[in-house]
Amino acid sequence: MTEKKQPAALTPAPRSRARMLELVFPKDTNYHGTAFGGWVLALMDKAGSVAAVRHARGSVVTARSDAVDFHLPIRVGDAVALDARVIRVGRSSMTVQVDVYREDMASGEQQLATSGLFVYVALDENGRPRPVEPLLVGDDQDAADADSGGRP
Amino acid sequence: MTEKKQPAALTPAPRSRARMLELVFPKDTNYHGTAFGGWVLALMDKAGSVAAVRHARGSVVTARSDAVDFHLPIRVGDAVALDARVIRVGRSSMTVQVDVYREDMASGEQQLATSGLFVYVALDENGRPRPVEPLLVGDDQDAADADSGGRP
Amino acid sequence: MTEKKQPAALTPAPRSRARMLELVFPKDTNYHGTAFGGWVLALMDKAGSVAAVRHARGSVVTARSDAVDFHLPIRVGDAVALDARVIRVGRSSMTVQVDVYREDMASGEQQLATSGLFVYVALDENGRPRPVEPLLVGDDQDAADADSGGRP
Amino acid sequence: MTEKKQPAALTPAPRSRARMLELVFPKDTNYHGTAFGGWVLALMDKAGSVAAVRHARGSVVTARSDAVDFHLPIRVGDAVALDARVIRVGRSSMTVQVDVYREDMASGEQQLATSGLFVYVALDENGRPRPVEPLLVGDDQDAADADSGGRP
Amino acid sequence: MTEKKQPAALTPAPRSRARMLELVFPKDTNYHGTAFGGWVLALMDKAGSVAAVRHARGSVVTARSDAVDFHLPIRVGDAVALDARVIRVGRSSMTVQVDVYREDMASGEQQLATSGLFVYVALDENGRPRPVEPLLVGDDQDAADADSGGRP
Amino acid sequence: MTEKKQPAALTPAPRSRARMLELVFPKDTNYHGTAFGGWVLALMDKAGSVAAVRHARGSVVTARSDAVDFHLPIRVGDAVALDARVIRVGRSSMTVQVDVYREDMASGEQQLATSGLFVYVALDENGRPRPVEPLLVGDDQDAADADSGGRP
Repeated sequence: MTEKKQPAALTPAPRSRARMLELVFPKDTNYHGTAFGGWVLALMDKAGSVAAVRHARGSVVTARSDAVDFHLPIRVGDAVALDARVIRVGRSSMTVQVDVYREDMASGEQQLATSGLFVYVALDENGRPRPVEPLLVGDDQDAADADSGGRP
Repeated sequence: MTEKKQPAALTPAPRSRARMLELVFPKDTNYHGTAFGGWVLALMDKAGSVAAVRHARGSVVTARSDAVDFHLPIRVGDAVALDARVIRVGRSSMTVQVDVYREDMASGEQQLATSGLFVYVALDENGRPRPVEPLLVGDDQDAADADSGGRP
Repeated sequence: MTEKKQPAALTPAPRSRARMLELVFPKDTNYHGTAFGGWVLALMDKAGSVAAVRHARGSVVTARSDAVDFHLPIRVGDAVALDARVIRVGRSSMTVQVDVYREDMASGEQQLATSGLFVYVALDENGRPRPVEPLLVGDDQDAADADSGGRP
Repeated sequence: MTEKKQPAALTPAPRSRARMLELVFPKDTNYHGTAFGGWVLALMDKAGSVAAVRHARGSVVTARSDAVDFHLPIRVGDAVALDARVIRVGRSSMTVQVDVYREDMASGEQQLATSGLFVYVALDENGRPRPVEPLLVGDDQDAADADSGGRP
Repeated sequence: MTEKKQPAALTPAPRSRARMLELVFPKDTNYHGTAFGGWVLALMDKAGSVAAVRHARGSVVTARSDAVDFHLPIRVGDAVALDARVIRVGRSSMTVQVDVYREDMASGEQQLATSGLFVYVALDENGRPRPVEPLLVGDDQDAADADSGGRP
Repeated sequence: MTEKKQPAALTPAPRSRARMLELVFPKDTNYHGTAFGGWVLALMDKAGSVAAVRHARGSVVTARSDAVDFHLPIRVGDAVALDARVIRVGRSSMTVQVDVYREDMASGEQQLATSGLFVYVALDENGRPRPVEPLLVGDDQDAADADSGGRP
């Protein structure tokens, strides 16, 4: 809107991966003062779907969520860091590993709190499954390794 | 607050089961115009936790969600009927089957859209697992059968 | 999305009636720690409109809400069970009785907390009032009675 | 937080009255593209409770809502102007008239869309009804008249 | 919807100005129990955009926010009164001063808590900047002065 | 909650920096179908406050937001990537640069959409400003550079 500033040039987003960061506010908690499980699941699906969209370069729908384990409760005032990576690709489906870390804001330490698998299917304009590219070996992983843990 | 009316006498809630009903509003949809998968997962955990609390008669936390399959998309304007039933009980854990039906508001027909398993653990006041009662055979199921499908 | 599973056959929803269940989370409370009155009214209109849509088999708008009495406060951690029933039908209007029960999660007992009347008008595609079917005597009430109180 | 600026001196709020303004965003609409009735009721209770708190100079709870008529639908993109005035005072109860105007953003015209009555009860620290001052004749009305309609 | 009542005649909204009122609920607070800064910024942009739309008589977009100072924290249970006034007009841009007052509900006193500038640009139907009328000297200010402070 | 799995070891979070990722859902849009400016400001404050908390290792409050320019609109279906970095440190204040990129989900390209400055003040347990450590030269910047742009 302001004419003086030039919008930055286009740069590529991370591929097949999404890292999110959230704060736990009182509105996200249940009656125990810890983050509502359903709120965590909704965040995981959001992160997982971005990783899948970035791999598929187009629309996806959630087909399945599996083996989501809640290891540690997340408390009000914690930050929540999510790391979603496409780990397996079928013809039109993508399996995404989603890890959720809780971060103690005072110490700055993160600890795995929840993890699970989400499966997405790529859709064409008519809402029918369409093929996606295979997962390149080392493609995203190298960048991730160089990224000192890759937490947001 | 109004003195004239008598509050109704206390009556028991359904045991080990919870049936919920929701409307899909535009705020609950993703960019395809169908209900956001994470929103459905959050509803499922909410229904599942009520079924578990009703069985445990006290606090529970979500320990795991498993094998959640999204069979059919849910559209804006559909109603969403959830049916959550405790189907297995360990020492302090409860496995809850959660079925999600989409209801076409014009025809009044419901169809299974999503289903999955949620595991909850009962906690005592110190946040440590505590034992729960076993599931009585036929306990809730009879009432459910008499209930012509039991959808809300 | 997953090909193996068959979606369940179509089954009819309850007619002229809607039963909802909600949990009171901290986000729904006012500065007293009890559920915000406006939040309860919004839930009542949601339940009432589903009962009216199920009777009208089509779109409705809220025309009036009347005589809504708040008998008992609802606290964080309570469940809220709503029961909405069409009780009177005009040419295109439907009067819905909405009762709100608060449920103590530890004891599993429900108690009437709020009740009131909501009037809806059925609309055709052009947004003009359209006639609805009369209320069948005993139609829904018998099912309700067989339903041991009919709370969700 | 910034030391240089002086916070403004204390000034009195309007007494026994509250005027609110809201925008209708897509998240507030139902599946017809107009504002969800329950969302309007929640706004009305919010405006009404501020008017009552300003009269009671302390905590209030919603006791009743009555005769709320929805005259005109409110559309996405409209502004919503609410005017809540205490019109009757009992020993500890206050009746508030709440009028809701929809404002066309292009023409800048407001039109009464919804109106109704809300009753609040003033509470002391133990949550028991406490007496409130009587309504002074002309007290707020004069200011309102000088205020060219008093819409926000 | 109800035929008996006549909708009120059309009346003009305030010009180039918007006054809003909000309550701080627990859902709007951060982990300190005071209103989340981002929540206040979102309210300020909402009030500012209504003032700009009322001046432009049409669509606007936010172009810039500047010099927003948080003088005093806003607590749960406070009311928040916003006053937004167009103070400068370019060819298609409008600068809006937004002041945020926190109101102590018990004493009924308001105190400036936050203030800042928001710039909006008027858009035509194709989303391109379009000219707006100049700010009339005294236009809105006189009404504001007659309005005993003009807080909602 | 599940005994078999070991929670991951503690690992350090990024220091003085926070990268967030969000999806724009219909609920976050204004009546133009683009992201509501206030929603973007709320996200920016959230990202900025995490960067400040990570630097201060403790509570902070927002003191000021400045020079926030909205260069490009963000549309429904875009992802939003935020990058917040502490760039200047006073005795107890921290200035955070927050950049907001919109990401086209089909092409995977990110473009700077909004940027601005947020100032936070570190607080001790009594809510009084407390000193924070200086910004180490190169501390976070090196990691950022190795991180190929550092977008989430």
